[in-house]
Amino acid sequence: MEDGGREAADLLKQIFPHTGQALVVGITGSPGAGKSTLVDRLAVHYRGTGNKVGIVAVDPSSPFTGGALLGDRIRMQNMATDPGVFIRSMAARGYLGGISRATGDAVAVLDAAGYNTILVETVGVGQDEVEIVKTADVTVVVLVPGMGDDIQAIKAGIMEIGDVFVINKADRDGVLRTEHELQSLLSISQRGDGWVPPIVKTIATQDSGITALADATASYQEFARAHPEQAELRRTRVAQFRVVDMLRDRLLRTVMEKCVTETELREMAQAVAARRRDPYSVVDEIVARLKL
Amino acid sequence: MEDGGREAADLLKQIFPHTGQALVVGITGSPGAGKSTLVDRLAVHYRGTGNKVGIVAVDPSSPFTGGALLGDRIRMQNMATDPGVFIRSMAARGYLGGISRATGDAVAVLDAAGYNTILVETVGVGQDEVEIVKTADVTVVVLVPGMGDDIQAIKAGIMEIGDVFVINKADRDGVLRTEHELQSLLSISQRGDGWVPPIVKTIATQDSGITALADATASYQEFARAHPEQAELRRTRVAQFRVVDMLRDRLLRTVMEKCVTETELREMAQAVAARRRDPYSVVDEIVARLKL
Repeated sequence: MEDGGREAADLLKQIFPHTGQALVVGITGSPGAGKSTLVDRLAVHYRGTGNKVGIVAVDPSSPFTGGALLGDRIRMQNMATDPGVFIRSMAARGYLGGISRATGDAVAVLDAAGYNTILVETVGVGQDEVEIVKTADVTVVVLVPGMGDDIQAIKAGIMEIGDVFVINKADRDGVLRTEHELQSLLSISQRGDGWVPPIVKTIATQDSGITALADATASYQEFARAHPEQAELRRTRVAQFRVVDMLRDRLLRTVMEKCVTETELREMAQAVAARRRDPYSVVDEIVARLKL
Repeated sequence: MEDGGREAADLLKQIFPHTGQALVVGITGSPGAGKSTLVDRLAVHYRGTGNKVGIVAVDPSSPFTGGALLGDRIRMQNMATDPGVFIRSMAARGYLGGISRATGDAVAVLDAAGYNTILVETVGVGQDEVEIVKTADVTVVVLVPGMGDDIQAIKAGIMEIGDVFVINKADRDGVLRTEHELQSLLSISQRGDGWVPPIVKTIATQDSGITALADATASYQEFARAHPEQAELRRTRVAQFRVVDMLRDRLLRTVMEKCVTETELREMAQAVAARRRDPYSVVDEIVARLKL
């Protein structure tokens, strides 16, 4: 599926009408915020209340080997043998791109397969990663007390996408200060839909606050249901994002298959590296092969 | 330039033969590692040794407003009035993509303008961000003692791209442990080029270790000069990445201009949101408008 083969595309087309049933919860936050543990506990919670749970973890990956890093996930072995929980790790995007599209495809497959609660976990710093969580029904932003120098920047960057905020590791020093900072940032933010994102304090390693988090998520769902026009706008925005995202991938793949060979591309790159050619005219040349 | 207008593209084509002169240093690391301060101090160091310094900061950005976040950068006001230092912040990628391409363009402009040392700073977690630093001549990975749970994952993810490693905030507890962990990770990594990445300890806020970092960077340059075939391979890889990256952007932009109107795209998205159509056939339909 990640390779975007023809058969996979046909399958995705067929299952599409069966999607849109699941609640997709996007969970993001900076490294070290304890997202994986939180996602695991939340999965156990949803499982315990009778749901089938899918987890799609977008891992920071080795850009050279392309391997996903699952260190933390090893502790989920028990859960992984429960057929009511499906765990999918997304590796780095390949040469021809598309971790965002590949994640969307994975969510669609789980959705069609009857997993009614899908948790999508990403590191909330990169562009692709942020765009992935934007396609969720509910977005949870995870912070910890007393982060580093960049906390303001991160907070502001993901401020507008959070429907629910979590302060994890809430037994640490500085939790009140972080909560107050967060409250004042939220008070000046302009969501435009009237929803005031709740702040939930959790200690994921001790299973503390998980029910409150699930409740906060459910409250947002209720709010969204009570405002169908806004929910419709969000769905359209997400659909448009997905179409453009898939189109970007597909165009590149198609052109690389039909308009330029690998040898030719390598020769072009060598010419650019040696500064015999500039990359802009190389791109012009390839694009000109399309009859537009 | 970030909008990729026709005139900008022509300009970039003209300046391209004048690029390739600068040393491009990519600096990456997770949030809170103190990258901005380190970059500032390094800029001051290079400026003090007679170089013209360009800084390109890829900020975690608000995905909704598209605004870059420059909190920390305010303290650089003094430097910003020095014509020998040029600071450029890259905002979020827009609807049609391309922070990686836009960063490459900014580096090219600074390079052609005679900035002989260009520092490119990114948060080292996202896919795009990692790809950006891979295009530098030397890549510096910044860690801090005793990071969070995800340290192993992050370390492993960026392990292979670091030519020089920095442990910043080296007055903190746990610096020796982090150094040992790093050494053992480096000892098992397979670079294949024979370079052993040095580990430099810094306290950027106290200007400590900055000269050692510049020296380590210079050592890698010497190594690269002594191995021209490998340097050639790296340049070709970077050139190929840039061509494909620019092509991806350009294809999407071209198709959005010539093959589909905004109204039509919105209607398609509405149909997908309402599940009257699937996004895969929408993409098929748009791609079919290209005569391939």
